[in-house]
Amino acid sequence: MQYNFSDRLKNLSGNAIREIFKLVNKPDMISFAGGLPATQCLPVQFINEFADQLLKGENACSLLQYGETEGYMPLRHAIIDYVKRVGINDIDINNVLIVSGGQQGIDLSFKAFINKGDYILVENPTYLAALHIAKMYQANVIGVDSPDDDGIDIDDLEYKIKKYNPKVFYIVSNFSNPTGKTLSLEKRKQIAYITAKYNVITVEDDPYRELRYSGEHLPSIKSFDKAGNVIYVSSFSKLISPSLRVGIAIADKNIIAKLTIGKQGTDVHTVTLSQAIAEKFLSGNYLFPHIEKSIPLYREKRDLMISSIKQYMPPYFKHTMPQGGLFIWGEFTNGASAVKNFNKAIENKVAYVCGCDFFADGKGENCIRLNFSNASSENIVRGIKKLAAVFNGDIK
Amino acid sequence: MQYNFSDRLKNLSGNAIREIFKLVNKPDMISFAGGLPATQCLPVQFINEFADQLLKGENACSLLQYGETEGYMPLRHAIIDYVKRVGINDIDINNVLIVSGGQQGIDLSFKAFINKGDYILVENPTYLAALHIAKMYQANVIGVDSPDDDGIDIDDLEYKIKKYNPKVFYIVSNFSNPTGKTLSLEKRKQIAYITAKYNVITVEDDPYRELRYSGEHLPSIKSFDKAGNVIYVSSFSKLISPSLRVGIAIADKNIIAKLTIGKQGTDVHTVTLSQAIAEKFLSGNYLFPHIEKSIPLYREKRDLMISSIKQYMPPYFKHTMPQGGLFIWGEFTNGASAVKNFNKAIENKVAYVCGCDFFADGKGENCIRLNFSNASSENIVRGIKKLAAVFNGDIK
Repeated sequence: MQYNFSDRLKNLSGNAIREIFKLVNKPDMISFAGGLPATQCLPVQFINEFADQLLKGENACSLLQYGETEGYMPLRHAIIDYVKRVGINDIDINNVLIVSGGQQGIDLSFKAFINKGDYILVENPTYLAALHIAKMYQANVIGVDSPDDDGIDIDDLEYKIKKYNPKVFYIVSNFSNPTGKTLSLEKRKQIAYITAKYNVITVEDDPYRELRYSGEHLPSIKSFDKAGNVIYVSSFSKLISPSLRVGIAIADKNIIAKLTIGKQGTDVHTVTLSQAIAEKFLSGNYLFPHIEKSIPLYREKRDLMISSIKQYMPPYFKHTMPQGGLFIWGEFTNGASAVKNFNKAIENKVAYVCGCDFFADGKGENCIRLNFSNASSENIVRGIKKLAAVFNGDIK
Repeated sequence: MQYNFSDRLKNLSGNAIREIFKLVNKPDMISFAGGLPATQCLPVQFINEFADQLLKGENACSLLQYGETEGYMPLRHAIIDYVKRVGINDIDINNVLIVSGGQQGIDLSFKAFINKGDYILVENPTYLAALHIAKMYQANVIGVDSPDDDGIDIDDLEYKIKKYNPKVFYIVSNFSNPTGKTLSLEKRKQIAYITAKYNVITVEDDPYRELRYSGEHLPSIKSFDKAGNVIYVSSFSKLISPSLRVGIAIADKNIIAKLTIGKQGTDVHTVTLSQAIAEKFLSGNYLFPHIEKSIPLYREKRDLMISSIKQYMPPYFKHTMPQGGLFIWGEFTNGASAVKNFNKAIENKVAYVCGCDFFADGKGENCIRLNFSNASSENIVRGIKKLAAVFNGDIK
């Protein structure tokens, strides 16, 4: 049978990272491709202990029954307190939706606002899954220039808002995926102000915020939201465990009500055991000590990757110096192609993600995203050497 | 700010069951509304034991990292064997996608095939979440008549396929939600034949199949699928635990590839711990003994509800006699309105779902769906008495 797939999926290929994920899931591959937390930072013992307490507890049965789409009530309550860290105050549980990973927060936000043909503005480059999701909603995605170390060009943002009348602006505010850049305080305020002025919904995606290795924490864009146009999305994937699939969306209660209806129509609710484990991390005050223990390791990995790049990569490789997160972004200023060299890199057992997958407009062929959080120290050095060899043309 | 929501969600209210769920989640309410398994049938101890084994095992870390969108490999392998029970043979892992509950299988199927304005045929009445999801894809949903005890009218199906040229036909093959009816063997074959003939994708939703209390198991529609047009969706929600959110979709590998891309764009992957727990139930041969232990309890509840209906409900209440599943469907042949009496029922602490929520065309106001699996025996009798009083007009 010849399948007549929907327009949204007919010509859409897989999300590049997910496809690479299958490729690199081999023991001898050094992968800088994924966005995986360090395996040694996964709190296996805590998760085991909490699961055991919960499943032996008096509420075990109710944890195993259907739960509310909005989320596990104790976690929703805990989140009200949790987001005070990013300057979000004066909210109640009607502003909180628990989602199945931060990415579902993006999906539901687009589902609630985007019609086919609507415009979405994104930082250029941006998180490739957000681009992938935007394509599923058949949106027109326009990139906003982001030449500076502190993120997007605010004038270009306003210019493109006026030109395209977008429904949504999507941005990763801290340690952006893929560039590792962080929005300055001033730009956060300006984004809140400008998007409110033009009635644009801002989806602020903030999964990396707590993984800061240098510099000072900044308040979220959402903290400057007076109009109710900002949806704040975050996740416990990088802080506790990705496979628990627990994230959050914080927004005006009318938006949360629509996201909830959207969620009813897909996975009904987020896995309750996962939510209850996340709640234990918060209510028992285990999360931040755990993160504090992880930070030195991540910092070391970042520093090691940067020093290895400096030592081995060719001089025409320019890269960012992120203060946190999981990624370094590099550009071959001589125009070397990350796309053309990809297979060669895989043959040599080192993987990255091509820059063009992060651009709304197909640019970035000469760029790569490197993840430093998952590989061992030894493999960071070996992998960068391999990569240097590929791009130096030393290996056929 | 005035929100300009997407057309798909602008006027869509919440899924009735999910909204009622919030209402009835109170200790003094007798709920016949949800589709919850019996709490005493939840295998808390097994789940606890398996979680503990898994999180203490040598693969614990990999269970907590990101997993493949297609699903946890050992579970996908186990599913190949599992679906032989329903007559699905000769498949490999490329025909298997693990989904976050059966409902996600419906959502992804519609996502992969439905454009705005496309037609979907459904049995009338049908599972309300399928109608809800269809609305999100802005489909035109047409009900196929289903007057007989063995399900839909095949002539009407063919007539409406010719008339509407639908992309998808959706049906619950065993112990239908909401009616409890089961398709006869002959109708299964005819559905497979006719939908293939006209290039219609059939989504066969089969979450209740193993909960059979009388009669003989029948092969799935999918087992008669020669053209590759049937997507078989099932779930462990009613067999292990709803809140683990583990379901399956079985289809031609080209369809599975598209569903996978659709899933990449929403929750990335299903919670791995949940999948690994389901895998332990299968590989350790714990699932079927567990189900066998549950069956007598469910049978007893069904029988008790039927005898209570016979004893207490008014003579103009006509109802189905399901051989399995979770639901009895009733019709007030005198035209009494389930909608108008709903608030009175809630005031009297008994809940049901109004029939009209299950019809594609708004019919069914004089019908109700009653769930018999979740309430205690005592509450089944008390609840039916309360219901009878509401509909007999005894309570103001």
